[in-house]
Amino acid sequence: MRADRILLAHGSGGTMMKELIEEVFVAGFGDEVLHRMDDAASLDFPGSRLAFSTDTYTVSPLFFPGGDIGRLAVCGTVNDVATSGATPLYLSVGFVLEEGMPVEDLKRILVSMHDAAAEAGVRIVTGDTKVVERGHGDGVYINTAGVGVLADGVDLSGSHCRPGDVVLLSGTLGDHGIAVVSTREGLSFSTDIRTDAAPLNHLVAAVLAAAPGVRCFRDPTRGGLASTLNELADASRVSITVRENDVPVREQVRGASEMLGYDVFQVANEGKMVAVVPADQAAAALAAMKSAPYGEEAAIVGEVAEAPAGKVYVKTSFGATRIMDMLVGEQLPRIC
Amino acid sequence: MRADRILLAHGSGGTMMKELIEEVFVAGFGDEVLHRMDDAASLDFPGSRLAFSTDTYTVSPLFFPGGDIGRLAVCGTVNDVATSGATPLYLSVGFVLEEGMPVEDLKRILVSMHDAAAEAGVRIVTGDTKVVERGHGDGVYINTAGVGVLADGVDLSGSHCRPGDVVLLSGTLGDHGIAVVSTREGLSFSTDIRTDAAPLNHLVAAVLAAAPGVRCFRDPTRGGLASTLNELADASRVSITVRENDVPVREQVRGASEMLGYDVFQVANEGKMVAVVPADQAAAALAAMKSAPYGEEAAIVGEVAEAPAGKVYVKTSFGATRIMDMLVGEQLPRIC
Repeated sequence: MRADRILLAHGSGGTMMKELIEEVFVAGFGDEVLHRMDDAASLDFPGSRLAFSTDTYTVSPLFFPGGDIGRLAVCGTVNDVATSGATPLYLSVGFVLEEGMPVEDLKRILVSMHDAAAEAGVRIVTGDTKVVERGHGDGVYINTAGVGVLADGVDLSGSHCRPGDVVLLSGTLGDHGIAVVSTREGLSFSTDIRTDAAPLNHLVAAVLAAAPGVRCFRDPTRGGLASTLNELADASRVSITVRENDVPVREQVRGASEMLGYDVFQVANEGKMVAVVPADQAAAALAAMKSAPYGEEAAIVGEVAEAPAGKVYVKTSFGATRIMDMLVGEQLPRIC
Repeated sequence: MRADRILLAHGSGGTMMKELIEEVFVAGFGDEVLHRMDDAASLDFPGSRLAFSTDTYTVSPLFFPGGDIGRLAVCGTVNDVATSGATPLYLSVGFVLEEGMPVEDLKRILVSMHDAAAEAGVRIVTGDTKVVERGHGDGVYINTAGVGVLADGVDLSGSHCRPGDVVLLSGTLGDHGIAVVSTREGLSFSTDIRTDAAPLNHLVAAVLAAAPGVRCFRDPTRGGLASTLNELADASRVSITVRENDVPVREQVRGASEMLGYDVFQVANEGKMVAVVPADQAAAALAAMKSAPYGEEAAIVGEVAEAPAGKVYVKTSFGATRIMDMLVGEQLPRIC
């Protein structure tokens, strides 16, 4: 590719777009179906039910400790598909490039996407690229959509939580949000805190195999654990209580959250999974989670009760109980 | 929803995002699977092969004669999936909203998406929304990804064209590109020229049924017919010749193209389909196309020859032959 920066012509449908697609995107991702250069990928599908999800990634800055927008764009959608209990198979990718973006940055992002997809065991099979004028984007926005295959009988939903169920969390809270915001604001502790962005499909599969009665999985991204649990409590018309002492949080993340005035329960994660399971399968689910990649620090953090429906509580380390609210207003824009 | 403009908090993962999703997106699209509010949609899939495609839409302005970005975002991806010969079933939608966008504009776009999806017979089943700061977007960018089911034995590809094949075009060229650019530039003929954006999956299915030997379908969007035919000639290592006199172009579009200095073969279309078929099935394919929705003005416009491989020619109305080049550089940014 001759240009070292993205030009409007790279989105024109003409010869320069062809060059960008062939030499950067297809070469970067490498999947054989991309080499056919057809408008849609034709793929085998080994089942009668599928899971389908999408997310657009607009994180700023594009690069941050432990990851970048590319790793995020693959892991986030893999995890969303996995929450249904499906095995993620295929990803589509749509880029909105800003005129002037360095092609080297784009290539670096594609390497991250390729590596994350390989780790997750999914194929990037179709894509699209648009270019917008300088100032109308932010380097790059990336959309990914994911398709997975659902085994017969698997029917997980945030509306399936029942009183007596147990809430598991796969690891520490807040790493991603604090890593991004501290990089963005140029805060000095940024080098110690890294994003947790990771593909959790293998972890989900392990828990589902060990605890087939699992009610649901949910990855606590934007809005953090607080949003996730409030959504589950609302959808299932149950109450959830979390024990603060049992929730793993790294010391640096806890300190940074306090300094910045954030509630760590509301900070975004990109490599954590919540699972709600019947009490009699909790031990098996926890053991499976701890043995799975990215699950070493998993813990049982709370329980589901009948009432008051839709409410989430925290038992604090001082023995008090407070409401765990969803974020009101806006705290951390452009975190994912 | 209380706000009449999009705020950063609508992308926060908190209560305002929940309100936007429930009251605007889920209410606007209405599909039952959206009401479950899970991170991935779980869906039936009636086959063993699927087609998967994606496109992001960044058209400016958002509204133009005959359509808007919403209609485009549904039709474009439906058509890309249909080019494989698949029956499109499901769409995902990812929005990048700009802070300050009027909520009324967003609702108008959702109505267009809903109506286009209903016309195509596809379901919008999963989605995501991000909000970027004022000035970092353009009202809204929309990504859609589409999944369709492929019947056994259907294997269409741009690499399957053979010498002797016939090239069909489903209608007039250039309407979309000229409608958008003339609206954007405030040109007076804009009211006469409307986008052709339309779902062509029913047309594709009709042609495939009538002419099962069809080699490929391709929708000539960015880069126009010139890019499409050059891609096919390149992928199949054949030559294609088009007769200018046989290519339908509206008088106003031809005049506007000449005035603006555009080659109508390079102008974008959003409701046209190219089909390459064996000569002995051309009459059946043409009849099916003409009887299908949006195919009334279909025509046989050219032929495939063996050599020179990768080259596309136009026989002009004056009897001369010239090369039909792909667009070099950039002509009409943000047309889709």
